[in-house]
Amino acid sequence: MAEKLTIWTYDWVPAGPRGFVRDLRLRWAAEEASLAYDVRTVRFEDRETNHLDSQPFGQVPFLTDGNVTIFESGAGLLHLARKSDKLMPRDASGEAETLQWVIAALNSIEMVTVPWWFLKVSGQQDIGLADWMGRRLAQLEAVLSKRDWLAADRFTVADLIMADVLRVSKVRAHGERPATEAYVARLTARPAFRKARSDQIAHFATADRDRQNGG
Amino acid sequence: MAEKLTIWTYDWVPAGPRGFVRDLRLRWAAEEASLAYDVRTVRFEDRETNHLDSQPFGQVPFLTDGNVTIFESGAGLLHLARKSDKLMPRDASGEAETLQWVIAALNSIEMVTVPWWFLKVSGQQDIGLADWMGRRLAQLEAVLSKRDWLAADRFTVADLIMADVLRVSKVRAHGERPATEAYVARLTARPAFRKARSDQIAHFATADRDRQNGG
Repeated sequence: MAEKLTIWTYDWVPAGPRGFVRDLRLRWAAEEASLAYDVRTVRFEDRETNHLDSQPFGQVPFLTDGNVTIFESGAGLLHLARKSDKLMPRDASGEAETLQWVIAALNSIEMVTVPWWFLKVSGQQDIGLADWMGRRLAQLEAVLSKRDWLAADRFTVADLIMADVLRVSKVRAHGERPATEAYVARLTARPAFRKARSDQIAHFATADRDRQNGG
Repeated sequence: MAEKLTIWTYDWVPAGPRGFVRDLRLRWAAEEASLAYDVRTVRFEDRETNHLDSQPFGQVPFLTDGNVTIFESGAGLLHLARKSDKLMPRDASGEAETLQWVIAALNSIEMVTVPWWFLKVSGQQDIGLADWMGRRLAQLEAVLSKRDWLAADRFTVADLIMADVLRVSKVRAHGERPATEAYVARLTARPAFRKARSDQIAHFATADRDRQNGG
């Protein structure tokens, strides 16, 4: 029998990021693939120093799988994808397509959307970064106008990570992109996403109650 | 016999990016692993439209390997890493460590350094982004102060991609980080890096001569 997976996240976060903390990506993948998992926590409060041995940037999530520990949500997703063909096909072409679109989500889309969002929420406007993001999202819209899934004509972990990158509301409000909107709506309607999201929100809500009870 | 790999890059680029175009990452990996490869080209001039079927963001490199085509340099590196244990160990822990650090280079470091560099070269200063990058690079400095290699106590493709992300001169000039400096110097002294870099520079110089000759 395979050892149970453990997804590590914070014990608590403020209201804003709930539903967006990246442990959701690993929960979602595990739900899609019906992989059993526990959720365990590290302290949010002293996150910049207390778990650097497991995550050298003080972030979450990280994943433990038997004697393997792996940080970076993208790496965790690729690790889980090797365990189940529900997440990634097993043929060489299907695997390459999935891999390239996972990396595209992380390094061609999120590399632009997160810094743009960062400047946006700090009340700054940057025209250059907004143009750059607009071009990238238009290129992705062109792809999604022609097909329902990024890789291998079926749901893969590439759609999971891309939809998670794209569902940030400020990014979606940035322009009219109907194929991308339909794609995000389709992905976030999946039962596995909905369970992962509501489980994460419940997890942090429980932490609130524990705090109120002096726990 | 394995089919020969083909690394696709532009036919020409201006002087500035020569030595930095990301086909270098794939050339470097192929040289480390002694994998035979050809280099072929797409046109730089109409890059935004002429090869979107192979690379939907109009960028390079992409890789062909028999009937598999794969874009995103990070995905190409992970594809090559599966072909040679010179790039990635074969045991589960070594593979997970390598994978997590490849993704960290792309999604925790480059996601901050490229937008910072983008604002810097467009003559803008952004304090928030500079602080964010400074924190990430300090966290990486703490890791590199304790060991020579990111994963598995040996050279892997994770060091290749991290060193390539870090060697950008403006990023290196941003702060004092002696362990990181020594790491970049050690990686870029490797014969495989030096050959990849000089081959890329020669490739674009040949394109200059062809242009002058009306070719």
